[in-house]
Amino acid sequence: MTGPELGPGTAQTDRGTVVETVDEEELYGPSEELLENVSAALAAGDIPLVENLIEPLHPADVADLIEHLEPDQRKLFLDITRHALEPETISHLDESLRDEVVDQMAPAELASMVTELDSDDAVDLLEDLDDETQRQVLDNLPAADRLYLEQGLTYPEDSAGRLMQRELVALPALWNVGETIDYLRATADLPDDFYDLFVLDAAQKPLGSVPVSRVLRSKRETKLNEIMDEELRLVPADTDQEAVAYLFRQYGLMSAPVVDAGGRLIGVVTVDDVVRVIDEEAEEDLLNIVGVGDTDFHAPAYVTAFQRVRWLVVTLVNTLIAAFVISRFEDTIGHYPALAVLMPITAAMGGNAGVQVITVTVRALATREITPSSNVGRIVMKELTVGLMNAIVFAVILGTLGGLWFGSVGLGFVLGSAMIFNMVWAGFAGTTIPIVMEKLGFDPATGAGPFLTTTTDCLGFFAFLGLATLFLT
Amino acid sequence: MTGPELGPGTAQTDRGTVVETVDEEELYGPSEELLENVSAALAAGDIPLVENLIEPLHPADVADLIEHLEPDQRKLFLDITRHALEPETISHLDESLRDEVVDQMAPAELASMVTELDSDDAVDLLEDLDDETQRQVLDNLPAADRLYLEQGLTYPEDSAGRLMQRELVALPALWNVGETIDYLRATADLPDDFYDLFVLDAAQKPLGSVPVSRVLRSKRETKLNEIMDEELRLVPADTDQEAVAYLFRQYGLMSAPVVDAGGRLIGVVTVDDVVRVIDEEAEEDLLNIVGVGDTDFHAPAYVTAFQRVRWLVVTLVNTLIAAFVISRFEDTIGHYPALAVLMPITAAMGGNAGVQVITVTVRALATREITPSSNVGRIVMKELTVGLMNAIVFAVILGTLGGLWFGSVGLGFVLGSAMIFNMVWAGFAGTTIPIVMEKLGFDPATGAGPFLTTTTDCLGFFAFLGLATLFLT
Repeated sequence: MTGPELGPGTAQTDRGTVVETVDEEELYGPSEELLENVSAALAAGDIPLVENLIEPLHPADVADLIEHLEPDQRKLFLDITRHALEPETISHLDESLRDEVVDQMAPAELASMVTELDSDDAVDLLEDLDDETQRQVLDNLPAADRLYLEQGLTYPEDSAGRLMQRELVALPALWNVGETIDYLRATADLPDDFYDLFVLDAAQKPLGSVPVSRVLRSKRETKLNEIMDEELRLVPADTDQEAVAYLFRQYGLMSAPVVDAGGRLIGVVTVDDVVRVIDEEAEEDLLNIVGVGDTDFHAPAYVTAFQRVRWLVVTLVNTLIAAFVISRFEDTIGHYPALAVLMPITAAMGGNAGVQVITVTVRALATREITPSSNVGRIVMKELTVGLMNAIVFAVILGTLGGLWFGSVGLGFVLGSAMIFNMVWAGFAGTTIPIVMEKLGFDPATGAGPFLTTTTDCLGFFAFLGLATLFLT
Repeated sequence: MTGPELGPGTAQTDRGTVVETVDEEELYGPSEELLENVSAALAAGDIPLVENLIEPLHPADVADLIEHLEPDQRKLFLDITRHALEPETISHLDESLRDEVVDQMAPAELASMVTELDSDDAVDLLEDLDDETQRQVLDNLPAADRLYLEQGLTYPEDSAGRLMQRELVALPALWNVGETIDYLRATADLPDDFYDLFVLDAAQKPLGSVPVSRVLRSKRETKLNEIMDEELRLVPADTDQEAVAYLFRQYGLMSAPVVDAGGRLIGVVTVDDVVRVIDEEAEEDLLNIVGVGDTDFHAPAYVTAFQRVRWLVVTLVNTLIAAFVISRFEDTIGHYPALAVLMPITAAMGGNAGVQVITVTVRALATREITPSSNVGRIVMKELTVGLMNAIVFAVILGTLGGLWFGSVGLGFVLGSAMIFNMVWAGFAGTTIPIVMEKLGFDPATGAGPFLTTTTDCLGFFAFLGLATLFLT
């Protein structure tokens, strides 16, 4: 969406690139050849060569190159190129690297960078600065930009207000196509490229939208309100980005108008921003289920270690509870050590079946296949049925194997029964835990996995050792 | 992107909808009120009321409504509305429901539906039909459509050729803006809305693209080749959809031209199709890591049960190997049953730390943060360091707790040492398993989790029980 400013009549040749056919083999990340050449140029201190090597690259590819350099070379690279880097390159960097670069820039430098970015990227960059630097950068901006960005910073993180850009084209409903084209040709201060025009009433409230291609195809005397789509969903600025992503996916939108509390148009969210959100949200679910907070690849080891501690503590508590359950049966195990051999089986099968169910349920909640108006009873019943079917199959297999291994029909029976009990529980808990968490207003992904496996471990050990105590001793 | 055909000068009023402000609380899925009203109307056999209730809804919302109905009501609803449903509604349905609807339609009916869909949705629908029905539907189509769709079906599943639509606007490089506008106004057979024009040479090969807004803003005498972007990435039709999604994300594209083996333009992939792909790919990773094949919510229980068996079998083999390891220490456990109590702790901590590492690594491979030119040694070293840091912390905590619980310094020492050993292994295996699988050409997500936990279980039990045998007996 963004890109160098293009006046009418100038072809885009600043990067000297031409049409190229994509080669899947060489698509991802910087090539080894490029990395080697840049490393060699850095080692030789040949600054012009470094600049020549990165000159034809897209800003996103320059950011990838920086991320792939060894830490000491990266430092050298940034020292050399910092002042020559395109603002877009910096906003493509991973967070910890971006902070590294931004920390070394003066407020005036940052301010000139901010003015070149789209307003959504500019807000992203500003919000990570400490309060004082942020203030200094804002003071260095032209008044109009400052006002826009200060406003942007007031919206909650991950809201439509943060996602939107202020640059948009909005026109009065009674204009006709001819007036519109003349205006667009004559006005210099417009977004680089845009895909929908918004039609406003006198109070700045949106009445509809017109795809640009439709303007192009209509006669000059046609009024905008005759060709506009009136099926328009206005997004309040404080709407969560997850809801925004849902709207785009559900209705195949290219852009959506954002309005303030008074219903006035203040910005537009475009589909390229939503692509990023969808990616982030799906990844968040995944990482939350396994208990990883963040995937910043460039964070130091101690930061990553600390981020992962939280879930390991949960696991610790989980296993201590399970150990306590087992300790109640220490005597039984002392008499019959075969139980210790088979005991992890019931817990593991229940745990894994449960994680399958919980993952499917969390995704169904995230993609809104399960909603407040869903019939929860039907969903739980289905998973109980699935759990029972598989439980019976595996109970027969493992009961038989366990019985044969230790030459005891009773032991096989105990193992099979405990397995059925635990896998049916897994089907029930795997659906109800996330649904209940969602109803209570928590994120259903966070911690659902550990919470579930605590129950399946404890129940698995308890059922197996308990039945063994009753029937085998 | 899609929508009812709009001639110039006609406002979109067929659904009778107007501008509405999004309410996050009522955004997701059909409201309970709507569901109740539709259910009541179905129960009363009031067909006109059912039709009235769904008339103002977007096709995607009608599809959601159908998915939320109870199975018997759904059947009734489809019996009543099947012939009145918009083709777009049917292509929004989940796969098993779509099959249900499509199976009951005659080839001629299907053919008329196919002609109303965009070519990518039409191919999606056709590929699920059995060969004979597919043939009959194709025979019922106009020759031009048939040729397009037959060609579409020849591209590999999940390729750019399947994702693209044939409907696009491509013009000669020497045309000027005036000629372009006149042509677009005069030609009826064009896509509903479009965002980029493609500029071709005499051999149908793309030279560049022009955002529609740029045409609108340029003078009538400007030639297209003066305002086109020459930085164009041509996507061969057999390119995998994952690579296509990467292109859109990396370069913020709105559309990308698809070419045949001769480099001729044959279609265009638009960003709304890519949104779906990104969603699917992220979900696939998540589901593969926990071993669930599919999340089709409307499949019968026995189908779902069968889909989940594969990973449960892997878990079964895993736990049997672990049980075998434990069985080698049966005598030790018989003498010292406290070992059975503490034994799951080492395995669980190593397993969970490992799943964290493996998830981060799989995602980094999927988002191309790790590429063939990455320094794998650095990544593995970082995770080993993270593993060691957390291992020491938890070894001290759990070693102390375990020692106090059973009043044995030796036992605490054994527990702590085994934990360090297993968590460092988890850091090493969690990074190397997916990276090696990727290098060997396998999907790094599939089965990586179970394979890893097999190693951490076995090593955890072996290290703990082995050290105990050496030092405590």
